[in-house]
Amino acid sequence: MPVLTRKELSMPATEPFDLVLFGGSGDLATRKLLPALYYRDRDESLHPDGRIICVSRGEETNDAFIAQVKSNSQRVMPDEDFDSDSFDRFARRLQYVGMDVTKPEAFDPLADLLKDRPDHVRVFFFATSPSLFGVMATNLKQSGCVTEKSRVVLEKPLGHDLQSCIEINQVVGEAFDEQQIYRIDHYLGKETVQNLMALRFGNALFEPLWRGARVRDVQITVAEQIGVGGRAGYYDHSGALRDMIQNHLLQLLSIVAMEPPQSLNSDAIRDEKLKVLRALRPIEGDDVSLHTVRGQYQPGAINGQAVPGYLQEDGVAPDSLTETFVALRCQIENWRWAGVPFYLRTGKRLMKKLAEIVINFHPVPHDLFASKNRRTKANRLIIRLQPDEGVMLQIVAKHPGDAMELRPVNLNLDFAQTFQIRAWDAYERLLMDVLNGKLTLFLRRDETEQAWRWIEPILEGWANSGERPEPYVAGTWGPAQSARLIGRDGFRWHEET
Amino acid sequence: MPVLTRKELSMPATEPFDLVLFGGSGDLATRKLLPALYYRDRDESLHPDGRIICVSRGEETNDAFIAQVKSNSQRVMPDEDFDSDSFDRFARRLQYVGMDVTKPEAFDPLADLLKDRPDHVRVFFFATSPSLFGVMATNLKQSGCVTEKSRVVLEKPLGHDLQSCIEINQVVGEAFDEQQIYRIDHYLGKETVQNLMALRFGNALFEPLWRGARVRDVQITVAEQIGVGGRAGYYDHSGALRDMIQNHLLQLLSIVAMEPPQSLNSDAIRDEKLKVLRALRPIEGDDVSLHTVRGQYQPGAINGQAVPGYLQEDGVAPDSLTETFVALRCQIENWRWAGVPFYLRTGKRLMKKLAEIVINFHPVPHDLFASKNRRTKANRLIIRLQPDEGVMLQIVAKHPGDAMELRPVNLNLDFAQTFQIRAWDAYERLLMDVLNGKLTLFLRRDETEQAWRWIEPILEGWANSGERPEPYVAGTWGPAQSARLIGRDGFRWHEET
Repeated sequence: MPVLTRKELSMPATEPFDLVLFGGSGDLATRKLLPALYYRDRDESLHPDGRIICVSRGEETNDAFIAQVKSNSQRVMPDEDFDSDSFDRFARRLQYVGMDVTKPEAFDPLADLLKDRPDHVRVFFFATSPSLFGVMATNLKQSGCVTEKSRVVLEKPLGHDLQSCIEINQVVGEAFDEQQIYRIDHYLGKETVQNLMALRFGNALFEPLWRGARVRDVQITVAEQIGVGGRAGYYDHSGALRDMIQNHLLQLLSIVAMEPPQSLNSDAIRDEKLKVLRALRPIEGDDVSLHTVRGQYQPGAINGQAVPGYLQEDGVAPDSLTETFVALRCQIENWRWAGVPFYLRTGKRLMKKLAEIVINFHPVPHDLFASKNRRTKANRLIIRLQPDEGVMLQIVAKHPGDAMELRPVNLNLDFAQTFQIRAWDAYERLLMDVLNGKLTLFLRRDETEQAWRWIEPILEGWANSGERPEPYVAGTWGPAQSARLIGRDGFRWHEET
Repeated sequence: MPVLTRKELSMPATEPFDLVLFGGSGDLATRKLLPALYYRDRDESLHPDGRIICVSRGEETNDAFIAQVKSNSQRVMPDEDFDSDSFDRFARRLQYVGMDVTKPEAFDPLADLLKDRPDHVRVFFFATSPSLFGVMATNLKQSGCVTEKSRVVLEKPLGHDLQSCIEINQVVGEAFDEQQIYRIDHYLGKETVQNLMALRFGNALFEPLWRGARVRDVQITVAEQIGVGGRAGYYDHSGALRDMIQNHLLQLLSIVAMEPPQSLNSDAIRDEKLKVLRALRPIEGDDVSLHTVRGQYQPGAINGQAVPGYLQEDGVAPDSLTETFVALRCQIENWRWAGVPFYLRTGKRLMKKLAEIVINFHPVPHDLFASKNRRTKANRLIIRLQPDEGVMLQIVAKHPGDAMELRPVNLNLDFAQTFQIRAWDAYERLLMDVLNGKLTLFLRRDETEQAWRWIEPILEGWANSGERPEPYVAGTWGPAQSARLIGRDGFRWHEET
């Protein structure tokens, strides 16, 4: 596919910048952030005077670090995208700094490196454990690194519960203004999530349909095939509700359900998203067992390969109660959505890798085309985030020929194909937004705290129940209770139809 | 494209039948009806015991007639569709009868031919000049050819004005019950017109959008590149309003604008279509000059070839006032459509061969994505009948990359491609519907008369004005007044945007 450069798309390049990447040799930096910056550099989106300073605890030389980034990048990028010369040009921006971020005096050399460029955009990207966020923010502030044009980027997880979230927000908030804080949920950087707003608010067609009178139910699924892998140490203290629902799925829910904002201004949009979170009916007390399902995967098979159960994974406590699957039935208490169930579902070791939002519309009120054996299929809009991104509208049309027989057809909007342009990775967009000072796709403090506030009663309910998570065989769609949760309303999860 | 047979589509074949084709060696029979019957025979849609009796004034032998049909069919069909063996099998159904239909006694041999098969479906297809409809119907009745299972098919034009239409309906109605009369408008047989009903009433999505609150205007265009050709003798006494608007365009309008019928029963649908015609605000008196434009083509060029003007065509009176172009601004006075202009337009020697219905939706009420230079494009649904059939929904989506920039994209529903099946010609469907006794796609007496009733004041207005039709250069989109008619409302014809 032809790749258009930034110039051909007439997108503005960034201002001059210094981007300081804490956790610069870590997994996220290697797999996502540095490749994303390479792509943006290749397309000339980055100002020529823009440095990328990678910080980690190691003591590598600059050359050794760059050689390592190069070989990693080559590994994770498609062959046609990686070009050695382009990479070497990109690498001139890179600078390695080894330091212990817990020591205030360790920030002095960094402050020296930055001090000649006080008017440049200055971005501190925290791609480390959240336990370091507070100390890094404090030390940056005290070493004088934080200027007016500074921004800080916080990777998830933002705490472990409401209290720890508030604490991080509090400490970081002492070093940075709220307008300087970019809390990442990388799902918001996906092209399709962006397009969801474009579809809803750019097309007069969709908005009148986007409400309880027309929508029967909404299903949001983020399914993984992978198990807990090397993340057991973290995951076993977290679980699917904290790891996925609290952030990604609630964010998707907010964007699907939000009212039209007054403008594209970041606070106008975040105000509307927050209103959705606040309108979510709490699931607490007896409602926890009624409206939630948690599961834990047992040994099974993925793509024909046997895989162990969760309790057999390295680093998982043998009696762990941590859930690897969650299904929720949510309700939004406002005029637009009263009475429309929103089903959320996520899990590891499920049948497919799949992330999608499914809007099921009501069937036609009076089915002219029904026959003895068949009722006309209701319309459905599928917004797919993974494995590929796209939007699909399922309608019915008449089958050619004699009889008035309706068959389902799909109107597809495949972004890559439609626009003949390489789709950006979520981190490309998010990094560009940080460099350009656009807060829209980042979470505001009150959003993160409200999400925890809604999540906590569910965690409490589970803890109080004394019950184990429902077992499910790896490679299935989760425990049978998940199908029952939605089946009680007379519906089925999209994968089963 | 693979051709599925009737059996693979599990469509029922017809009952045993006798189809008597008056005008059996005429243009319509040669170009359309006999090829359509050949296709249906090849797909095994026709009962093995089904005869096709071709009547004309000539005195050919059966063999000579069949040889002629064969060579004509080969000429008008795509090479891959014509198969000599299949044709010979089909030809066994054909039987030629030469007779003068104005003479009652000439019907006796026909009656003889039919009398052994009184329980067969019996179809009389009148593909002749409408001046013969009355006498043929009377003679069929008097010769005893009309049985309970008889049907008569009337080709357009059904008269020249309201009075002549009533007369034909009256005389034919004395020989046949209304339930036996199939008045053809072949536009109703087009797959896309069928699909328009499927889209509107099979999908809960479209119905709430299908009304004045959502629709800004509707444009129906049937544009021809051809001139008056060999039809001048007929056309110069008819004109575009009678030849195209009175039937095809008003029919398309009825189907676009109709309320959901209670069922697919033919009278339920025709009742709703009739209600639309009755709700059309009359264009009379001073309104004629305000809401209508008529034009007449001048010499010009089509596809780079010089073509004569209408007045220079053979068989056209040198001072003819006949219009070859009409544009109308119509209003439907009911709750659904009050205030929504419906623009109709048709003409000969226009820029393109094109038949389409364009539904322009209102723009978004509050344009979040507007920039200094650009407002978000409004949604549009295009139902295309010619040159190819399909439905296209124009929406906007975000262009991939950094900025929230919306671009138009088209969701296409190409029927042939979607269903991987050869599309039927309109006459194939209509002939099958006649043989199967389905009246839905045929006009009821009251519809044809109501259409004339609405058309006549326009004809009168033009006659009383004493003005000539507006001249337009062949190969353009008609006279400038047509653009002004729609421009007064602030809109443009679809082709010009």
